[in-house]
Amino acid sequence: MSRDLLETFDNQFPDRDYRIEIRQPEFTSLCPKTGQPDFGVVTITYTPRKKCVELKSLKFYLQAFRDNGIFYEHVTNTILDDLVAVVSPQWLKVEIAFNARGGITETVTAQFASSGI
Amino acid sequence: MSRDLLETFDNQFPDRDYRIEIRQPEFTSLCPKTGQPDFGVVTITYTPRKKCVELKSLKFYLQAFRDNGIFYEHVTNTILDDLVAVVSPQWLKVEIAFNARGGITETVTAQFASSGI
Amino acid sequence: MSRDLLETFDNQFPDRDYRIEIRQPEFTSLCPKTGQPDFGVVTITYTPRKKCVELKSLKFYLQAFRDNGIFYEHVTNTILDDLVAVVSPQWLKVEIAFNARGGITETVTAQFASSGI
Amino acid sequence: MSRDLLETFDNQFPDRDYRIEIRQPEFTSLCPKTGQPDFGVVTITYTPRKKCVELKSLKFYLQAFRDNGIFYEHVTNTILDDLVAVVSPQWLKVEIAFNARGGITETVTAQFASSGI
Amino acid sequence: MSRDLLETFDNQFPDRDYRIEIRQPEFTSLCPKTGQPDFGVVTITYTPRKKCVELKSLKFYLQAFRDNGIFYEHVTNTILDDLVAVVSPQWLKVEIAFNARGGITETVTAQFASSGI
Amino acid sequence: MSRDLLETFDNQFPDRDYRIEIRQPEFTSLCPKTGQPDFGVVTITYTPRKKCVELKSLKFYLQAFRDNGIFYEHVTNTILDDLVAVVSPQWLKVEIAFNARGGITETVTAQFASSGI
Amino acid sequence: MSRDLLETFDNQFPDRDYRIEIRQPEFTSLCPKTGQPDFGVVTITYTPRKKCVELKSLKFYLQAFRDNGIFYEHVTNTILDDLVAVVSPQWLKVEIAFNARGGITETVTAQFASSGI
Amino acid sequence: MSRDLLETFDNQFPDRDYRIEIRQPEFTSLCPKTGQPDFGVVTITYTPRKKCVELKSLKFYLQAFRDNGIFYEHVTNTILDDLVAVVSPQWLKVEIAFNARGGITETVTAQFASSGI
Amino acid sequence: MSRDLLETFDNQFPDRDYRIEIRQPEFTSLCPKTGQPDFGVVTITYTPRKKCVELKSLKFYLQAFRDNGIFYEHVTNTILDDLVAVVSPQWLKVEIAFNARGGITETVTAQFASSGI
Amino acid sequence: MSRDLLETFDNQFPDRDYRIEIRQPEFTSLCPKTGQPDFGVVTITYTPRKKCVELKSLKFYLQAFRDNGIFYEHVTNTILDDLVAVVSPQWLKVEIAFNARGGITETVTAQFASSGI
Repeated sequence: MSRDLLETFDNQFPDRDYRIEIRQPEFTSLCPKTGQPDFGVVTITYTPRKKCVELKSLKFYLQAFRDNGIFYEHVTNTILDDLVAVVSPQWLKVEIAFNARGGITETVTAQFASSGI
Repeated sequence: MSRDLLETFDNQFPDRDYRIEIRQPEFTSLCPKTGQPDFGVVTITYTPRKKCVELKSLKFYLQAFRDNGIFYEHVTNTILDDLVAVVSPQWLKVEIAFNARGGITETVTAQFASSGI
Repeated sequence: MSRDLLETFDNQFPDRDYRIEIRQPEFTSLCPKTGQPDFGVVTITYTPRKKCVELKSLKFYLQAFRDNGIFYEHVTNTILDDLVAVVSPQWLKVEIAFNARGGITETVTAQFASSGI
Repeated sequence: MSRDLLETFDNQFPDRDYRIEIRQPEFTSLCPKTGQPDFGVVTITYTPRKKCVELKSLKFYLQAFRDNGIFYEHVTNTILDDLVAVVSPQWLKVEIAFNARGGITETVTAQFASSGI
Repeated sequence: MSRDLLETFDNQFPDRDYRIEIRQPEFTSLCPKTGQPDFGVVTITYTPRKKCVELKSLKFYLQAFRDNGIFYEHVTNTILDDLVAVVSPQWLKVEIAFNARGGITETVTAQFASSGI
Repeated sequence: MSRDLLETFDNQFPDRDYRIEIRQPEFTSLCPKTGQPDFGVVTITYTPRKKCVELKSLKFYLQAFRDNGIFYEHVTNTILDDLVAVVSPQWLKVEIAFNARGGITETVTAQFASSGI
Repeated sequence: MSRDLLETFDNQFPDRDYRIEIRQPEFTSLCPKTGQPDFGVVTITYTPRKKCVELKSLKFYLQAFRDNGIFYEHVTNTILDDLVAVVSPQWLKVEIAFNARGGITETVTAQFASSGI
Repeated sequence: MSRDLLETFDNQFPDRDYRIEIRQPEFTSLCPKTGQPDFGVVTITYTPRKKCVELKSLKFYLQAFRDNGIFYEHVTNTILDDLVAVVSPQWLKVEIAFNARGGITETVTAQFASSGI
Repeated sequence: MSRDLLETFDNQFPDRDYRIEIRQPEFTSLCPKTGQPDFGVVTITYTPRKKCVELKSLKFYLQAFRDNGIFYEHVTNTILDDLVAVVSPQWLKVEIAFNARGGITETVTAQFASSGI
Repeated sequence: MSRDLLETFDNQFPDRDYRIEIRQPEFTSLCPKTGQPDFGVVTITYTPRKKCVELKSLKFYLQAFRDNGIFYEHVTNTILDDLVAVVSPQWLKVEIAFNARGGITETVTAQFASSGI
């Protein structure tokens, strides 16, 4: 299960509510209907509780979608669920801005809990 | 009726309030007075309830306005009504930014219900 | 009186609070002190009640300032007054961003009633 | 005293709360420590009560700092004090974005009263 | 201790709540794991109480991280702690936007007290 | 034949080699295979001999492709042939930059005679 | 005759072939057919011989077209002829980029003699 | 062999030397050393002789590199060789601008024959 | 004489024809007619022979124009003459792009000898 | 000697004159006079003969300047000499655009042999 690729490290400032924003502009998966590649920009924002996501493991986790046939809405919500399960943040938001297909662009944004900051 | 062109698929995350933003920069219709073509950029944003709009059907639905003579305000509100009727979203917003005519640019924005996120 | 140049058409969606934004980047009038031409970008935003402003008549109305000597603050408030009188909107805002004179740029923004959306 | 350079004219719309934004991108003064020139972009925003600041007099007032050795924080607050004293606005904000010195950029923003609009 | 490099000067306007924003686009430190250099843009924003941070001393303080192996989250929170200890501001925010590593960009934002303006 | 839509007016400066560049960013035709609409930006550049192309007639000429199924390369060369036949310029170049289809963008550039200036 | 508005001053460096580029982004004239205002950006480039054009007189010269009904190609070539007659430059180029009318933009470029630099 | 995926259609204007530029911004292959994905923007420019490359077949041809481990220089020259062999153009240029790896960006440009236009 | 402010250092690569481009965006002098400040961006490009201009001395040299009343064309040619006299380059070009005055922008470019590279 | 850090790999297309452009936007060294850090963007362009520079070794080679006190002109020419010695290219160009110091920006460009393409 690709969620197992995610690793964390201890948050050294657990008493302060600070914000981490991560941007990966080279996300690619496959369209489950046509098998054609999809491309998008992933932005993840959160306030950590006890753990932060380790960036190299996040890179491998996101790369694991490269050969997956998965819909826009599904992949965004799956990444949200996986990160919340592994990182247990105060809040966390995932946005994926997919490149145009058939002249139409779609951006999906899903969030866990409301932002304290 | 062009509304019949719109198709939906089941929202797989009905318990989460997430946002979908769709952008189609190649909208064209006709001016009802002069018959001259109008061009604009359509942006649709919504939070789904049980259904999401299928993008390919949305492409054909928007293309169906190509030979229609229709005013800026009318086309924006019509697209809003059609999408709300077919998708039954929590909320939905349609914005069309029309290209300049006579040196004047008009953007019309209409919304159904207020945004929860 | 130049206000008489403004024409309206019936709002076909009087039960919905939607927003219309109109931008005219080729506004020109004269400085009342020096007679030198002023240039600016006019942006008009409003929510209609029963009537919408007709764009071609708006073009002629704005062109009628071409030979008028009038101060920045005066012209912005005058356009606001004229549009509110003719259109009777829920709210309406006029902003004019004037080009630099003597190395200084001024933008004047005036509004009638507060925006519902 | 350079404050005396500022002139005003009567606000013709004293019953409406509208906003005036003035931008002067060619501000220059001297560093009080090194005598080296500083450069910055001044932005002044306010809602007038009975008087508006006359732009030509404002140009001369800002030019009067050209040979003054004065700190970033001091010049911003001094311009605020002078304008408030002369214009008696409902509220007024001064922002100066100074160019980089030693690779570091500083922007100072000071405000009198809170914005009604 | 690098905090000792920070110097202050007296705030000449202690009765006004104004904002100072400082931007240093040439921050560099080392990755504690690989020893590879990291680069980022530091933005510091605050409202002073009795003291302002002196910019030249801030430049030397930030340069002192050049040979430090330190994580993104740690360096951001350390700069926040040092500035708050030395400047005693009403509130203070530190944001560092680090350049991409492995195709992934991270921005960390930490704040002391909530902004009054 | 749509070429007949093009009108000309007399060049008042036939003894000077000057350049005219015309840009129409709202070109649309149909894909001859799929019937789907194509969109592009047309740029026409030329040096007139005795005649210049009249802009309003050019607008109608270009609009006449709206319902035509025609390939990228064909439409570009056809517009070149039509303009050369009607205007008899010293030289003339047509470039059409078509919007992305299937994630791929194509620009076609064809020219009659070599540019004297 | 508006050419008489142009004034010159002596070129203090007649032995060096240097280049002067002048840009006026607020040109406006009238369409000779419809009476509607046209707007454009004028760029003048030249190498002086014994005289340079005085900028304030150039401003008044260009403003004198404000109430003239004149075609794009005509106004560009007329400005070229007037400047060449008054300034006697080594070479001189006039380019006017007119704003879109009917969705179509035209730029006219005319030149006297070939550029030595 | 992936070259077999490329299809052509007859050039309808074989007597005119015109230029076709094709841009595909979603190219991805794998690093032959690390197996990590590479991303880049492919630009192909050529003048056809008797045949033009068919865009849908080009899309599939470029997608076939998705699972290939291949160096930057190799992939650029291979695409050039394949297109020249299949299209027999007058000249053809391939440029791939690869995204940054380790903070370093590389663009490779290879060309067959020299451009006639 | 302000030329005396310019210092040089020995070119360590006198056998190679390389290019140095220097940009100072904070140039200011006074209008000799009105006494009003002028602002501009100075760009100096050259290939050194035996000496390079020292940047700190160049900064002070350019600052020395701050209180000088001097025309656009004069200041550009004077800087060219001073630098050529002090640096003895293979070739050297000075360009000053002055900010708009009366809505008109002027850029003056003067060069000594022709560029070898 | 830091030149020894550079590694090469065999050019697989020695019979074709193609171009490689490499950009490293995170170059940093020290000012030899003040010890203050300098920052710049390095661009290297060349046509290989038998060898190409290996990018990871180039990264380490450029990082080796991090603690070097070296002038702008010296570092640019040194990188050129080192790359030419190790890669033996047909031609090679090095450009470094250094960030502003004292408000002045310098870009140094040095080249070995003239570009064949």
